[in-house]
Amino acid sequence: MKKKKKKVNAAILIIGNEILSGRTQDKNIAFLSNWLNLNCGISVSEVRIIPDVEKTIIKNIRQLSKQFHYVFTTGGIGPTHDDITAESISKAFKIKYGFHKEAFKILEKYYGKDKFNDGRKKMAKMPLTAKLIYNPSSAAPGFITKNVLSLPGVPSILNSMIENCKRYLVTGLKTYSRTLNLFTVESNISTNLSSIQKKYTNLVDIGSYPFFRLGKIGVSIVSRSSSKLALSKVNKDLLKVIKSKKIKILNI
Amino acid sequence: MKKKKKKVNAAILIIGNEILSGRTQDKNIAFLSNWLNLNCGISVSEVRIIPDVEKTIIKNIRQLSKQFHYVFTTGGIGPTHDDITAESISKAFKIKYGFHKEAFKILEKYYGKDKFNDGRKKMAKMPLTAKLIYNPSSAAPGFITKNVLSLPGVPSILNSMIENCKRYLVTGLKTYSRTLNLFTVESNISTNLSSIQKKYTNLVDIGSYPFFRLGKIGVSIVSRSSSKLALSKVNKDLLKVIKSKKIKILNI
Repeated sequence: MKKKKKKVNAAILIIGNEILSGRTQDKNIAFLSNWLNLNCGISVSEVRIIPDVEKTIIKNIRQLSKQFHYVFTTGGIGPTHDDITAESISKAFKIKYGFHKEAFKILEKYYGKDKFNDGRKKMAKMPLTAKLIYNPSSAAPGFITKNVLSLPGVPSILNSMIENCKRYLVTGLKTYSRTLNLFTVESNISTNLSSIQKKYTNLVDIGSYPFFRLGKIGVSIVSRSSSKLALSKVNKDLLKVIKSKKIKILNI
Repeated sequence: MKKKKKKVNAAILIIGNEILSGRTQDKNIAFLSNWLNLNCGISVSEVRIIPDVEKTIIKNIRQLSKQFHYVFTTGGIGPTHDDITAESISKAFKIKYGFHKEAFKILEKYYGKDKFNDGRKKMAKMPLTAKLIYNPSSAAPGFITKNVLSLPGVPSILNSMIENCKRYLVTGLKTYSRTLNLFTVESNISTNLSSIQKKYTNLVDIGSYPFFRLGKIGVSIVSRSSSKLALSKVNKDLLKVIKSKKIKILNI
C-alpha cells in the first residue's frame, strides 16, 4: 500500500550583505521555491534575508529549523573571511567545526596538492557530522546538518547542485496551480472572488495579482491546491463569474 | 550646530504567496534597499517574505517593529479577499480597523461616487490612527502605523509612492561603497582580505563575490562604510595586494 503523502514545508535563509544592500538581485528564492514544489512537493513557507553576522545566523538557524521541516541556506560557504555560514551552523547546533574528511579529499583532488591553499582548505571546514551535497560544477560541496541544507549563493552553482539535495528530502504533497489572466480590474470581481474563496477555505488558495500588459490593466487569478479536483471546481466557479461579467480572458 | 547622524536601520516584510511560491520574482527588495540607503541613510538589516496568513503577519509585525527603527511592508493592501495587511497590522497594534476618512475621500473622488464599489472602498480601510502615504499613480494610499510603513506590492506603483515616505523617516548615516572587480579567484586573495578586514573591524565591511564574465572567472570586492576616509584606506591596502599578486582589474 502506498503511504499517503503529507504537507511538507521549508524555509529559505539567504545569508549575504550583497542581497540586503540591494547591490545584487536575488535569483535563488524563485528557483528554490519552484524546484522544491515541482520536484519534491515541498512548499516554501517563509524566506529570510540576513547579513553575514554570526549571532544573527545562529539565531535564525535555531528558530527556523524548529519551525519548518527543512531549512535551505544560501551563501557564505566560500573561501573568504565573510563566509561564516558553516561555522555559525556548527555553533547553532553545538556540533564540532573542523575539516570534514570527505570534503577535504574531494577538494584536494580537484585542486591538486600544490594549489590546495588555505582559502580552498577553508571550504572543507564544516560541522563534522554533516553529510555532503555534491557540487558537479566547482567541487566545493554543500552540506546538510540536521534538517538544514547549506548551498552556495552563486545561482549557477546552486542550480547545478540542487538535484543532489533530493536524496535527503522526504517528499510531500505537490501543490498544483491554475491561472486565469483577465482583462479587468480587481475591484470588479473582488466580492465574487471572496465568496468563492470562502466556499473552498483550507482546500484552495485563491490569489489575485494585477498586471499591466499591451497597454491594458489586467489581473491574474491564481488558484493553488494539492487537489486537482478542487482546482477544477474553483475554475468552473470562476468561469461562471467571468462569463456573467463579460470579462475577456487573455490566453498566454 | 548640525546634529550628528546615527545609524538607522529597517526591515522589509514582503507579504504575498506569489513571491513565496516562486511564481513572481520579487523586485521590491533591491529597489527599497537602494532607495533607503541612497536617499535616507537607512540600511536594511533584515528581509522576510511571508504568506497571506493573518497570524503570521501579526507575529512578524510585532517582532520586526520592536527590533528595527522602521518596517516596510509590501503587498496585501488591494481590494481582494487576500489583501489582509491593513487589518492584520490593526490587530498587531490593537488599533481599531475601519474606514479612514481621508483615504475614503481620496478614493471616492478618484473613482467617482457611482464607481466606488465595495472592493474599492476596502482600500480605504486601515488602522484608524494611521497617516497616509499618497499614491500618485493609482490613488489608493499606503499608510504608516507607528514605525510600520505599508506599501503596495506592484513595483511600478510602489516606486511612484516612495518619495512620499520620506516625510515620515528620520534619516541616518549614509553607507558608501567601493567596488573592485578583479580577474582572479577568491581563494587567491582570501587570506589578504581577511587581514585587511581585521584591521578595519567595525569600520568597514569587506565582501567578496565571485562572478563570471567574458568567459572568465572574477571576483568583486565590495567595501562598505559610513566613513569615506576609511574606504579610501581600505582601497589603498587592497590595491597593494592586487599589485603584488599581479591581478588584472576589470573596470566597468
